Amino acid sequence: MTLSSRHIDRFAEAAFESAFSLKDAADPAHRIVIAHLSPSVDQGRFPAKRVEGDTLTVEADIFADGHEALAAVVAIKREEEVTWRRVAMTALPNDRWRARIRLASRGRYAFFVEGWADIYRGFARDLAKKRDAGRKLDVERHEGHVLIVEARKRAAGDAAASLDAILRDLETASADEGIERLLAPETLQLMAALDERKFLTRGEAQTVEVERKAAGFASWYELFPRSQTDAPKRHGTFRDVIARLPAIRDMGFDVLYMPPIHPIGTTHRKGRNNSLHAGPDDPGSTYAIGSAEGGHTAIHPELGTLADFHALVGAAAEQGIEIALDFAIQCSPDHPWLKEHPEWFNWRPDGTVKYAENPPKTYEDIVNVDFYAPGALPGLWRALRDVVVYWIEQGVRIFRVDNPHTKPLPFWQWMIADVRKKHPDVIFFSEAFTRPNMMYHLAKVGFGQSYTYFTWRNTKRELTDYLTELTMTEVRDFYRPNFFVNTPDINPPFLQSGGRPAFLIRAALATTLSGLWGMYSGFELCEADALPGREEYKNSEKYEIKPRDWSQPGNIAAEIAQLNALRKREPALHSHLGVTFYNIFNDRMLYYAKTAPSRDDKLLIAVSLNPHDAEEGDFEVPLWEWQLPDDESVAVEDLLQGRRFTWQGKVQHLRLEPASPYRIWRIRPREGALP
Amino acid sequence: MTLSSRHIDRFAEAAFESAFSLKDAADPAHRIVIAHLSPSVDQGRFPAKRVEGDTLTVEADIFADGHEALAAVVAIKREEEVTWRRVAMTALPNDRWRARIRLASRGRYAFFVEGWADIYRGFARDLAKKRDAGRKLDVERHEGHVLIVEARKRAAGDAAASLDAILRDLETASADEGIERLLAPETLQLMAALDERKFLTRGEAQTVEVERKAAGFASWYELFPRSQTDAPKRHGTFRDVIARLPAIRDMGFDVLYMPPIHPIGTTHRKGRNNSLHAGPDDPGSTYAIGSAEGGHTAIHPELGTLADFHALVGAAAEQGIEIALDFAIQCSPDHPWLKEHPEWFNWRPDGTVKYAENPPKTYEDIVNVDFYAPGALPGLWRALRDVVVYWIEQGVRIFRVDNPHTKPLPFWQWMIADVRKKHPDVIFFSEAFTRPNMMYHLAKVGFGQSYTYFTWRNTKRELTDYLTELTMTEVRDFYRPNFFVNTPDINPPFLQSGGRPAFLIRAALATTLSGLWGMYSGFELCEADALPGREEYKNSEKYEIKPRDWSQPGNIAAEIAQLNALRKREPALHSHLGVTFYNIFNDRMLYYAKTAPSRDDKLLIAVSLNPHDAEEGDFEVPLWEWQLPDDESVAVEDLLQGRRFTWQGKVQHLRLEPASPYRIWRIRPREGALP
Repeated sequence: MTLSSRHIDRFAEAAFESAFSLKDAADPAHRIVIAHLSPSVDQGRFPAKRVEGDTLTVEADIFADGHEALAAVVAIKREEEVTWRRVAMTALPNDRWRARIRLASRGRYAFFVEGWADIYRGFARDLAKKRDAGRKLDVERHEGHVLIVEARKRAAGDAAASLDAILRDLETASADEGIERLLAPETLQLMAALDERKFLTRGEAQTVEVERKAAGFASWYELFPRSQTDAPKRHGTFRDVIARLPAIRDMGFDVLYMPPIHPIGTTHRKGRNNSLHAGPDDPGSTYAIGSAEGGHTAIHPELGTLADFHALVGAAAEQGIEIALDFAIQCSPDHPWLKEHPEWFNWRPDGTVKYAENPPKTYEDIVNVDFYAPGALPGLWRALRDVVVYWIEQGVRIFRVDNPHTKPLPFWQWMIADVRKKHPDVIFFSEAFTRPNMMYHLAKVGFGQSYTYFTWRNTKRELTDYLTELTMTEVRDFYRPNFFVNTPDINPPFLQSGGRPAFLIRAALATTLSGLWGMYSGFELCEADALPGREEYKNSEKYEIKPRDWSQPGNIAAEIAQLNALRKREPALHSHLGVTFYNIFNDRMLYYAKTAPSRDDKLLIAVSLNPHDAEEGDFEVPLWEWQLPDDESVAVEDLLQGRRFTWQGKVQHLRLEPASPYRIWRIRPREGALP
Repeated sequence: MTLSSRHIDRFAEAAFESAFSLKDAADPAHRIVIAHLSPSVDQGRFPAKRVEGDTLTVEADIFADGHEALAAVVAIKREEEVTWRRVAMTALPNDRWRARIRLASRGRYAFFVEGWADIYRGFARDLAKKRDAGRKLDVERHEGHVLIVEARKRAAGDAAASLDAILRDLETASADEGIERLLAPETLQLMAALDERKFLTRGEAQTVEVERKAAGFASWYELFPRSQTDAPKRHGTFRDVIARLPAIRDMGFDVLYMPPIHPIGTTHRKGRNNSLHAGPDDPGSTYAIGSAEGGHTAIHPELGTLADFHALVGAAAEQGIEIALDFAIQCSPDHPWLKEHPEWFNWRPDGTVKYAENPPKTYEDIVNVDFYAPGALPGLWRALRDVVVYWIEQGVRIFRVDNPHTKPLPFWQWMIADVRKKHPDVIFFSEAFTRPNMMYHLAKVGFGQSYTYFTWRNTKRELTDYLTELTMTEVRDFYRPNFFVNTPDINPPFLQSGGRPAFLIRAALATTLSGLWGMYSGFELCEADALPGREEYKNSEKYEIKPRDWSQPGNIAAEIAQLNALRKREPALHSHLGVTFYNIFNDRMLYYAKTAPSRDDKLLIAVSLNPHDAEEGDFEVPLWEWQLPDDESVAVEDLLQGRRFTWQGKVQHLRLEPASPYRIWRIRPREGALP
């Protein structure tokens, strides 16, 4: 089984072309090397991600043979713009160059690096050295004159007049005066502006996707609207959710995310605790989407009407809360598409449609569309895009996407870009819990936020390693982690066994380690009843209506509110980036700093990782980062307790009780006392 | 000064194309991702380097949405070959795939990875799981039948007959028998061979340059032929070098490298110790190439004739030694090219040619060609290539290139590939002591060997960091370090102050840490007289004839011979790769293992880094690498002293005296006693 060898030869032909021709080699544009561009996601195949207001730091290695002085700029523009803005790069050690560019507005940007030989600057640099060495410089003076005469030919207007003046000066100047004129700042500036950019070379173009602030900084709250009720028998509604908004706002959340709100199928409906047979009152899984009452663009009648939904979106906006919807592509066997579009599904030889399975597990209440079925293209792909567009038209701008790793990557790449072209404020959040390659690739193809492994990272080593991977490797440029502490599918063992202190610990870690975090309702009540030996909640809300007493004793709503309020005030907590782990001499305590770009102060955060017992240990205040001696004093502000005090010396001691397992301080040593 | 905006828009247009069309997205070839290919030098722009007989390990991340079973191969061929050889890849954890391919012969290879969905294998995998779970499988049996009928349409000959037999069996088989038939190894094998390779995707093509063994493993000896004499007044000749060959062979060297052998200019000739004015007997710098007697293709008359040179090449070959020449592009002001090709030079306004300088330093005895002078292309570039070809025709196959970083990178890329196309056995060795980017890029564009920073790496930390960079980062695929312990330009402080033990230490490090090492003659005599406070030799041989007594007391020729002999015998010493640093609890001692690919034994090497005093310390025998307990005994062979003994337990103790500052042992724990 081989492919046409002609086809393959064409494909691989390029591989042998690095032995390039003399004509290619002689192209002056090949003299300068521009390499190791940053940011660059898969060599420019995918955009790097930033949010509005970020400063983009562009770096590249730029070098060439010989002694020429080089110069470089970053050229950048938004997709819609016509002209490229050029920002000068400055040279760092070892051929590294850097420019910083503020990204004022959202959209897709392209940028590339240009480097060239700045002939006059190199001449002037050498001339100054020779002058300082006391060398005779008659020929050099002549050479400078020639360079200026050449530049004069390219000049017009004021520049031409200024060069004429310099040339006149040079004719009457003494030898020493002539050299000084050649090296005068005015001459250098004029000559730089008129430089012919010899050996101009361009690096490969890269793109940057600049999203709105909420793509990188937001606090998510997840609830099932049907559970917003006081009795299991009464199905909660959008109106009930509206009534809950003030409490959610008071806890400091910005995003309210609801699992699918569409009609639920009845065929093979799942009962309580995922049982195969539903009782007459069982509401079914919200993920079995579609019934005679409609599919992905319909609303489950018991939740309310489209008008109710609009009311909810409006009421939430008034509280500063955005509604996020679930985009789950699967269908119940009752979904209208099965009859309207049988060509989108995978039919078996016995005439049934293939239901979802992960052998030997089966999901009889769900059937999946087949993206590559002979009749699926382009109808199915467009219809799915149009589902998203429909909800955008209803006021939704954030979509949490269910299991995107089981749908084709090129579908997401096309759909997300197509939607965001018209609606650049739409954010897609990837719910893929799978191998890291796939999770990262989904972010590359367009997802602006991603679920993570945070939920299963509990020890000091696990947390440090994971944050290091997210913040210090290439993924930092395209993968925005959203640290969910729990989900309807994930009741983590740490919470099951750790009681209230465990909830406080995980909330403190999520809120301070990531710009994006989220919780599924019940977390604030420290709910953790599980199916034995599993990560599933007992009596899971996925299959039943679950009223709750939101003010029940032991809840941590106040602590969550305090953490979220602190997040809003502190730029250092608006991203997972800018984290540094420091020494605390106890393996069950984590201690780290968060720093905002171009800020001198630091937030220092210490969290006990042990929900059962008190932990204590010495920790190091990073005085060395301000070049301060180990015995220096620094003013400290405890941001949770509001107290101010002084730490004397680098080594301090801390004890954390389970009831109060974290501290957050600000230090700002360079300014002395804190404001 | 802006470029045509239309030109730039075309350039950057591609950057915005990642928002690809629905038609592109729907292409089945986009479903599977092939990423993070290895080896891959700058995404395939440059070849990875290997030598004949190496095993190439190709790895890639290969993944796709959903539950399909994937399959992958590496397709590989030499440039001259017509058909691609396909080697199956095997799956490792986390979507990583790997294949190993022996590179039997030299030349340029291209390879790429192909991945596809192996439909029947995925079907069979799921079928087996469902069978094991005791599920009813009537529809699955039907589905398997359909897949086989489809494959039958693509089959011919024996495969068709075999499938027909299977289909007949299925018709009469019981339900259980049918499942077993569908899962039978014969069925799986037939179906794999007839797989239609759905969603076939190719990774980007990469190249590998496979050079002869000497590109990666050789011991170099450098000498000035004019110094092969018994009196400064008598100019040494090629015939004198022939007389020295047995001694060089006895020390175990394979390559004899001579600085330029061409006529030396007289204008501005340098005198002893780089003085500006030469006396009447001063021979001048061999790097001031060219006089009335000829240029780069001529031989300095005092060295002998072309026939003498041929005799030297022949005599060396008889001793197993190759002659390496210096390719130094600079000219003396007397070089014939200045008159024959004034268009290749940079003339100043006063009618003189620009001499070499690195302001404020000047090199009046040397003028440089100007690669981008208006008249230099293509004449100069071809003439330089033809110089190399001329010496190839005289029997030379190795060129040490002087200061390649001051000549254009595209020149090297074209010239080296052009020469190696006809003469794939030619090796180019880059003498660039400059910033790492340039040194590495020269290797990328074609240099098969490179000088390194080894000469200045003396402490444990410096050596460990540098070897880690060379062996564990991307440079391992394209940069072959040649560890020179000294050169006519570099008399390292460590040797100046450390006496004979320092020479032993550096020889032991170079010979065991790198497949390629070299010394400049005088090293074996522990010569280290320096100009005060400099790394320059006093009375440098660059400017004078320097007879030596090769048998003078204290020489280390015997130790060098022993190390070189060991290198020849031990595959672990044929490359810098395969090094692991282990604990020795003394910061002035270095302790490491070298392992050859697919060998189970290890060489363990301990070197004192202190030439002045004895050092001692405990060290760890890496028993854990063979899963042996810490108290295990291992048989040890001391490869220098020829003794055999036993180490009992993981921790051993070593004391090294300055007179005997290194040990080399072999351990092979899995086989028990050593052979």
